[in-house]
Amino acid sequence: MPEISPRLTGINEGGDDGWGVFYKARRMKADGIDVTELTIGEHDIRTDPAILDAMHAAARGGHTGYAMIPGVAALRQRVADRIRNRTGVATTQANVLITPGGQAGLFAAHVAACPPGRRALYIDPYYATYPGTLRAAGAQAVAIPTRSEDGFLPDPAAVDAAAAQGAASLLINSPNNPTGVVYPDTTLRALADICTDRDLWLISDEVYDTQVWQGTHLSPRALPGMADRTLVIGSMSKSHAMTGSRIGWIVGPEPAIAALIDLATTTTYGVPGFIQDAALFALDQGTAFEARIAEPFRRRRDAVLDVIARQQIVRAIPSSGAMYLMLDIRATGLSGQDFALHLLDSHRIAVMPGESFGRSAAGHLRVALTVADDRLVQAVETLCAFAAKAAISA
Amino acid sequence: MPEISPRLTGINEGGDDGWGVFYKARRMKADGIDVTELTIGEHDIRTDPAILDAMHAAARGGHTGYAMIPGVAALRQRVADRIRNRTGVATTQANVLITPGGQAGLFAAHVAACPPGRRALYIDPYYATYPGTLRAAGAQAVAIPTRSEDGFLPDPAAVDAAAAQGAASLLINSPNNPTGVVYPDTTLRALADICTDRDLWLISDEVYDTQVWQGTHLSPRALPGMADRTLVIGSMSKSHAMTGSRIGWIVGPEPAIAALIDLATTTTYGVPGFIQDAALFALDQGTAFEARIAEPFRRRRDAVLDVIARQQIVRAIPSSGAMYLMLDIRATGLSGQDFALHLLDSHRIAVMPGESFGRSAAGHLRVALTVADDRLVQAVETLCAFAAKAAISA
Repeated sequence: MPEISPRLTGINEGGDDGWGVFYKARRMKADGIDVTELTIGEHDIRTDPAILDAMHAAARGGHTGYAMIPGVAALRQRVADRIRNRTGVATTQANVLITPGGQAGLFAAHVAACPPGRRALYIDPYYATYPGTLRAAGAQAVAIPTRSEDGFLPDPAAVDAAAAQGAASLLINSPNNPTGVVYPDTTLRALADICTDRDLWLISDEVYDTQVWQGTHLSPRALPGMADRTLVIGSMSKSHAMTGSRIGWIVGPEPAIAALIDLATTTTYGVPGFIQDAALFALDQGTAFEARIAEPFRRRRDAVLDVIARQQIVRAIPSSGAMYLMLDIRATGLSGQDFALHLLDSHRIAVMPGESFGRSAAGHLRVALTVADDRLVQAVETLCAFAAKAAISA
Repeated sequence: MPEISPRLTGINEGGDDGWGVFYKARRMKADGIDVTELTIGEHDIRTDPAILDAMHAAARGGHTGYAMIPGVAALRQRVADRIRNRTGVATTQANVLITPGGQAGLFAAHVAACPPGRRALYIDPYYATYPGTLRAAGAQAVAIPTRSEDGFLPDPAAVDAAAAQGAASLLINSPNNPTGVVYPDTTLRALADICTDRDLWLISDEVYDTQVWQGTHLSPRALPGMADRTLVIGSMSKSHAMTGSRIGWIVGPEPAIAALIDLATTTTYGVPGFIQDAALFALDQGTAFEARIAEPFRRRRDAVLDVIARQQIVRAIPSSGAMYLMLDIRATGLSGQDFALHLLDSHRIAVMPGESFGRSAAGHLRVALTVADDRLVQAVETLCAFAAKAAISA
């Protein structure tokens, strides 16, 4: 066999990535064991039947040939309107590329922003695919650590120091996976200033923008001068429970979108037209529909925080968005990975070790709020009792 | 705005790419003018309603969450069986990655095969996205010219000479778009030997493998030793009239597929599960279904060749597959582009200039067999009469 390009073999760094817990839980379930899975960001509801019926109507109506590569005009316009209404920033179809999901958007945005070998900055802890995505795009992925004590917010001085060494882009994610943190305006302004001063692209992953439980979500594209250097990643996955439909978008300056259309022509050749029609239908259901999708996570978050408040060992990272809570279990003396593995073995509860999301989250756990309220509360109570026992024996 | 990566801005080379005719025809149609479009490879039938109903049943049945990134196990197995049955080469799920269309497969295969900056060989004339795809994947795209007089078959000596200068991969496409040529076994064996001798990956685009009108299609993966160095690109677009569903696959050696799964995790995050279920349903309809999809092109090809046989100016390139015919109009003294533009202006018939598919096809036209038989025959009769007039005035 000839050589496989190091571009691919280098996507994953060596070593245990902490996903062993996830795969072990899946194997246990396959073996018929009743595991409470609080691992990945998959809704416990399915895509709304009305959306699926709209997709079927579009397909049966004949929208089964090649769709326009940048996206169907009506959907691009609808996304542009959505972004303009939310941010007040002028946005037209020419600022929008429809992508087969947010992940495809993240990859394409980094290909656009990062000439091969340039440094691409991202914040640790991070969504699990980030470093591999940056490397797959040909960039040198550079993690910027944060501290649990700072609520995992990036320190602008640390970002600036990394940018000063030369970088093409900064990737942020607010509301944040895995921490649930929504970046305050002061942080976003400071990061925007760094991007301007250091001439970086800001790649802003906003796929959780409908899941904000306190305060408001500010898109950094709305900050002065930032529309020219920000690529916003959006998706229908979380806002409309459409993970499996693989549809999202990139919003950015016209010349960047034009270049990204050339990339789409050679990498995806567009997104199925019937899925785009379903997405348009879904967006047309309005904010009440989106609030209904988000509501269970808000409710469950409050319920879990009540459980956490009743004990002293496990600390919740202060957060205000997304479908996760990050728990600090360092008082137990266990690593996130050991804690998660023991919890799975002894109580059939699967949570993600913080280490799966970067070194900064060592000694933490990410809990996905994706099972029914009662079961979730019971699982977190068990988790806390388990932590208390571990802390005593530590 | 910060710099956009030269990786993107370099996808398209400068200069007229010959697609002006296509866009002009589309504008004329949008203006209500009745244009006979013989331009792109889009079936004149739509995806079969039974396939769309299977998709809807899968979606309503709950297959709307994240699908397995390498593809649904049943579909990977079905594709593996299909390939094994057709080639006699041992093929398992581990040799198969499901991709969101053949174009995504082409891109990913070149990322896998070509370390950044390495030379990637392809045959001219070529499918229009090829050179841009190779450049988007980070390779240096190197065209190998062919001659109309050789039926646009690659000359192994020319391929070997290009490979001798150093290359990572050779991309071939049989049955061929745009020429309709099916590579004979002798050509494929010679190319396979070059790949072995020069340690190249062979990337074999076989998306037209159900459209063979004479002889048989040989997949070069079946040749001795080639399963270890061949990446086969497949798609449901042409075989099952599912262009808009964006589903295809890469078949290759296990380690390459494993590496490609890492790429898929960071670029697409899988293909919609309900589309995979629809593809499985479609493949389960068997070869009679596929023959029914292919049949109109065989019939129309014969009808067009009858028209061509009745005159002396326009020569058809001997071909035996795919949904196109390549016509040599050099006897008119016109370029393919001038001929196509004048034909569109004077007769509202749109065909693709050969120049759109590379320098080797200058002075040729590609006719897509994608309109009803009567209309197609009439259009080609008009084309021949137009050519005769042009030849007289030349």
